[in-house]
Amino acid sequence: MSEDAKAVRHWWRTSIIDMEPGRIAFRGHPIQDLIGNVSFAQMIWLMTRGDLPSPEQAALLESALVAGVDHGPQAPSIAAARMAATCGVGLNNVMATGVNMLGDVHGGAGEQCAELYLDIAARMDDGADLQTATRDGIAHWRETYGKIVSGFGHRFHKPVDPRAPRLMALVRQAASDGAVSGRFADIGEAVQAEIGSQRGTEIAMNIDGATAVIFCELGFPPPLSRGLFCLSRSVGVLSHGWEQMQQGGRNKGPMPPAYLPEFEPR
Amino acid sequence: MSEDAKAVRHWWRTSIIDMEPGRIAFRGHPIQDLIGNVSFAQMIWLMTRGDLPSPEQAALLESALVAGVDHGPQAPSIAAARMAATCGVGLNNVMATGVNMLGDVHGGAGEQCAELYLDIAARMDDGADLQTATRDGIAHWRETYGKIVSGFGHRFHKPVDPRAPRLMALVRQAASDGAVSGRFADIGEAVQAEIGSQRGTEIAMNIDGATAVIFCELGFPPPLSRGLFCLSRSVGVLSHGWEQMQQGGRNKGPMPPAYLPEFEPR
Amino acid sequence: MSEDAKAVRHWWRTSIIDMEPGRIAFRGHPIQDLIGNVSFAQMIWLMTRGDLPSPEQAALLESALVAGVDHGPQAPSIAAARMAATCGVGLNNVMATGVNMLGDVHGGAGEQCAELYLDIAARMDDGADLQTATRDGIAHWRETYGKIVSGFGHRFHKPVDPRAPRLMALVRQAASDGAVSGRFADIGEAVQAEIGSQRGTEIAMNIDGATAVIFCELGFPPPLSRGLFCLSRSVGVLSHGWEQMQQGGRNKGPMPPAYLPEFEPR
Amino acid sequence: MSEDAKAVRHWWRTSIIDMEPGRIAFRGHPIQDLIGNVSFAQMIWLMTRGDLPSPEQAALLESALVAGVDHGPQAPSIAAARMAATCGVGLNNVMATGVNMLGDVHGGAGEQCAELYLDIAARMDDGADLQTATRDGIAHWRETYGKIVSGFGHRFHKPVDPRAPRLMALVRQAASDGAVSGRFADIGEAVQAEIGSQRGTEIAMNIDGATAVIFCELGFPPPLSRGLFCLSRSVGVLSHGWEQMQQGGRNKGPMPPAYLPEFEPR
Repeated sequence: MSEDAKAVRHWWRTSIIDMEPGRIAFRGHPIQDLIGNVSFAQMIWLMTRGDLPSPEQAALLESALVAGVDHGPQAPSIAAARMAATCGVGLNNVMATGVNMLGDVHGGAGEQCAELYLDIAARMDDGADLQTATRDGIAHWRETYGKIVSGFGHRFHKPVDPRAPRLMALVRQAASDGAVSGRFADIGEAVQAEIGSQRGTEIAMNIDGATAVIFCELGFPPPLSRGLFCLSRSVGVLSHGWEQMQQGGRNKGPMPPAYLPEFEPR
Repeated sequence: MSEDAKAVRHWWRTSIIDMEPGRIAFRGHPIQDLIGNVSFAQMIWLMTRGDLPSPEQAALLESALVAGVDHGPQAPSIAAARMAATCGVGLNNVMATGVNMLGDVHGGAGEQCAELYLDIAARMDDGADLQTATRDGIAHWRETYGKIVSGFGHRFHKPVDPRAPRLMALVRQAASDGAVSGRFADIGEAVQAEIGSQRGTEIAMNIDGATAVIFCELGFPPPLSRGLFCLSRSVGVLSHGWEQMQQGGRNKGPMPPAYLPEFEPR
Repeated sequence: MSEDAKAVRHWWRTSIIDMEPGRIAFRGHPIQDLIGNVSFAQMIWLMTRGDLPSPEQAALLESALVAGVDHGPQAPSIAAARMAATCGVGLNNVMATGVNMLGDVHGGAGEQCAELYLDIAARMDDGADLQTATRDGIAHWRETYGKIVSGFGHRFHKPVDPRAPRLMALVRQAASDGAVSGRFADIGEAVQAEIGSQRGTEIAMNIDGATAVIFCELGFPPPLSRGLFCLSRSVGVLSHGWEQMQQGGRNKGPMPPAYLPEFEPR
Repeated sequence: MSEDAKAVRHWWRTSIIDMEPGRIAFRGHPIQDLIGNVSFAQMIWLMTRGDLPSPEQAALLESALVAGVDHGPQAPSIAAARMAATCGVGLNNVMATGVNMLGDVHGGAGEQCAELYLDIAARMDDGADLQTATRDGIAHWRETYGKIVSGFGHRFHKPVDPRAPRLMALVRQAASDGAVSGRFADIGEAVQAEIGSQRGTEIAMNIDGATAVIFCELGFPPPLSRGLFCLSRSVGVLSHGWEQMQQGGRNKGPMPPAYLPEFEPR
């Protein structure tokens, strides 16, 4: 191989996949050994992490992926996907349109919350107790992100987002089974308690706070909290886009035409 | 240069741009000769076509680019851009989200109409008279695209889309000045007359029918009718996204939260 | 509720999700009953189809989702995602960039192949035998899509794409267990035999031909073959984007800078 | 109009466009008065700013829009657009794919540089002299963005990016004509001198530094530096995508297949 060819191959080096004619391996596992033997969630773990999870770890990942698929057509990602589905594009475009919107505000809460949890854990590693680390971690986090701590409280689901307690129960079960440490469940609840204490009224953990606990327990770095949420929400985006395609419509606007008659698309 | 290096350079060959340190040329024109001397519309022509337009051609292109920038927030592209602007993403993402939606239905009418005009012109080149070519061209077009001919009629702008007659007047003026042939203006009006005749009631040309006349007069192939419309609409997408950023909002859904309280984004 | 409010709610109607404060249900199933009890693959089925699959159906869906995650950085979707990851955008944008590219050519083979299989099945429902239906179905398909039948043959994996026989073995096992009919496995193999016979040399089924068998066996309509492939490939897109973020780089171009020194990004 | 309807209309309020049947106005100007009378660059200004620029202001904006259209296929945005063009998608998708990549690193330099210039101007408004404001502004900027100041220096164009001096000459001319103040030209050159002084060797202003001068002189807020660059670069993205469509290819990878034979797209 010429030096030029080596340089090109190095430019696109990857440890995820290698191939030769008739052979495909992911992270060293021949694909035919994976197909039919590992779940989709296990494959997601293998691809993003490099090793295979235990069944208990995979189950916990799976619970978080199931929890986040959709929160209805008022979400910009879902609304945009449904509108795109009426514009004469393929489902790939519909899905890209929805996922593209999962930015810092719409899709970033889990990532931001994971950063907080990991910072608190680091403070404890440096010798702080849970309560002090939590208080200091929240204060530090707010310098970057502002007063409202991502992962806690919900405008609509009062008193409780039904996904969070279910996810936390699964984490606690996994911790009691020894599958995870339970450390981030403690941290998440300490954050919840501290925020509640500071504002003088209880606040609930929401889905982002609970999935961040899971992703931290499983060792995913914060950016993958967003990445995994994007994978999860892609299911809702696809489902709504497909439902809209079956309902029909052309150039679906955000509201019935009678509302904005002067704004017909063209 | 090694054979490998040559192969890579051939893989990415382009006749649009060439450079060396301190020198950039587009289609052979050094960039410093273009900056300050050609308009943005002339540059669009140069980049997509390879040569520079006459001032009259550039003016006609410019009129079409000005005409299509926006048709309000009921258009899926504009609505999605405004929603994206509240999701914590950059303006690049906002613009991509809006433009991505300009598919066959939302952004393809001009391209489809241009195909019809060019097919009619080809029939005339083969000896058909305007009326016959128009009738046969419409019939052929409908086999692919269905009954409603893109470029004619408007649900909202009745009796007339104000952009179309203004654009057609400019085409006629340019034809009388010898800048364009006027052939596609004739064809566009023949299509309008034929459709009206067939349905027994007059129909107006809309913006897509008129911009397709212009793009055909100027020699752009049909896919560029869509491409140029995307450039034009990008201005509206950017403007609305930016206005929304200034209005504020987080995770803007398609309607006021009071309407779909059960569908808060999260 | 006012008539206006009803109209708005109707505009965004969906049978996928319904909510009230503290309650979220998908297709009628409370979310807390799904989390921890259904796999991610089962959730994908529930969301796109409306009911829950049997474990055997879910396993077959899972095998197809696992098979398609990635085929390396030479694929435009993966390459673009890796480049996007160096441009200063979030993982949502990285994923959207990759998925957006899964158009008719890059992501549509499974959908096109499913259309062929279903057309052959319809011809059999109308009384044709398998061989005649296959021959006629292929001829009809080629009128739309051209000579090369999507789902068969592979430029690189010779003699055999290792994913296809593994997937087909799982379909055959599921058919013998009564979980699926096996009808589309027969059709897929008949298509393979017919193409081989017509060209006088054997041809292998590739991953698109095999996943189309699975999606047809499971009752997914053709556009969902693309949608499910997009979900599957999203895993590879995320994994490669994330690996690239860890490798670092800024404005990663398609080849080492030494190859195209005159085309530094700016 | 019902209260509900009013709420919906308020939700989508805009000062950019208003319409009634047969009438479209942008920022109060009937569209038929704009078409044929304002340039595309003037329309971009009107849409994003709310008023019409003077001819001199429009000319300066136009020079910046012309300067940024393209920097070759080694740029991720251009490479991705060319790859997308071979994947079976429309030009809208091609353009969205390219523009989506213009994130903080690939498309954000002008915005970041504009922030620096405006901060220096604010320090001068508070009484600092140019040199002190520049030194302090740079130090402050580096706390956020790091050592390398966006807008200065170029890996390839040595000694000088040919676009920058041409743009600066146009700014100086416009200032001497009274069309702009020239204040940001002074600031840009002070930044250039200060960086050069600090590192002990001269550094050139690049296109981002020069366009940021123009956009600041014209009163555009920093995020629009990115937005306007996205509009400009959209021209290159479209042109390259279209050139690639004409060259043909299917699933174009980042390098010739012979380089990565084991990574055929599928």
